[in-house]
Amino acid sequence: MSVGTHPTFENSPSGTVLTSPPDGSAVDRATDAARRVVDALLRTDRGNANLERVAEELNSIAGHLEEHAPAVAERLIDMWNGEGVTRHDPVTGPENALAPPVVLEGLSDGSVRGTVTLTIPYQGPPGHVHGGVSALLLDHVLGVANAWGGKAGMTAQLSTRYHRPTPLFEPLTLTGKLMSVDGRKITTAGDIRTADGQVCVSVEGLFVDKTVPRPR
Amino acid sequence: MSVGTHPTFENSPSGTVLTSPPDGSAVDRATDAARRVVDALLRTDRGNANLERVAEELNSIAGHLEEHAPAVAERLIDMWNGEGVTRHDPVTGPENALAPPVVLEGLSDGSVRGTVTLTIPYQGPPGHVHGGVSALLLDHVLGVANAWGGKAGMTAQLSTRYHRPTPLFEPLTLTGKLMSVDGRKITTAGDIRTADGQVCVSVEGLFVDKTVPRPR
Repeated sequence: MSVGTHPTFENSPSGTVLTSPPDGSAVDRATDAARRVVDALLRTDRGNANLERVAEELNSIAGHLEEHAPAVAERLIDMWNGEGVTRHDPVTGPENALAPPVVLEGLSDGSVRGTVTLTIPYQGPPGHVHGGVSALLLDHVLGVANAWGGKAGMTAQLSTRYHRPTPLFEPLTLTGKLMSVDGRKITTAGDIRTADGQVCVSVEGLFVDKTVPRPR
Repeated sequence: MSVGTHPTFENSPSGTVLTSPPDGSAVDRATDAARRVVDALLRTDRGNANLERVAEELNSIAGHLEEHAPAVAERLIDMWNGEGVTRHDPVTGPENALAPPVVLEGLSDGSVRGTVTLTIPYQGPPGHVHGGVSALLLDHVLGVANAWGGKAGMTAQLSTRYHRPTPLFEPLTLTGKLMSVDGRKITTAGDIRTADGQVCVSVEGLFVDKTVPRPR
């Protein structure tokens, strides 16, 4: 599929932001606060932080939000029409507390790039990023790279190589770039590097030119 | 590395639970409530749910939890000594609100298996699971399968194939099994299937017999 009006490296300036950064809206601030809660729950004193009360308060907030939620089918329609497709995903979505969230920009060489510092919720080995989290981030980066390259598609295959443990608590650079197109097959590559340029994880993805229809 | 006292299919009965299911403790209940908040934030009415107030309340809870948190270095030591290694990770950890959480059990044929139903926070394409989330879940399942097979190691390479879009809101079965060991190289395979047995995603992982040391 051609992505039509989406920004690409051929029609947009280098440095174009391709995701939806947190914009200070109430939903973004509430989601950012939920991220703080998720992180702090893993760090707080198990015996001394009155977690029974915290559970009650969080359930009360959840109950309030659920009372104001439309039916899921209806919500999905709104989500995919007009709110912005990068507002809800688990990697770049400012409205999704699972997302760090990553902000990605497109560069003039056709690549996309972002920086992220990950904390304890994303831990796999002690003090390091879960290998599956690295795969999650890179899969998404490759999808954004495809769009910046003027293509869109579904992931068909993702090959992830782990070169060294990826540290938590340090800025990591994520990059991705559409490498080649062969008929309906799109090949895209990316990696995660530390601030001093060491490659921790690299990935190559094969995408096919099809999409899941939007709900309506 | 041999995993010593960990349960394996040779020393433990079929059906042994290999992860730490939520146990009703205050921290597990608070984390489960945080999951409800994360999900409800994506679903609630953007204009009518008083999200400014929700942001304030969540920040207040986060502040309280942070006040009672030890230094991160100290917290990491506790986390990796005695609390149980499957309590904090982003796939099976009942104390990690990013985790659904998945519960995995070991079977007598050497495989591990679990069932999970994913909701909007895990969405990629409309109404379907994010491809990177599937990779995250399967990477973790393979690690648990290695331990059940009597081995442990770091992911060196993960090859993920996407056969069809993976649905949200339906029970999915995750499986993994250690397939072969060649010196320090461990090969492990797994997949995600729908309730009627259709394979959505399959994965093969190459692991190497080494670990990141625990903090102390």
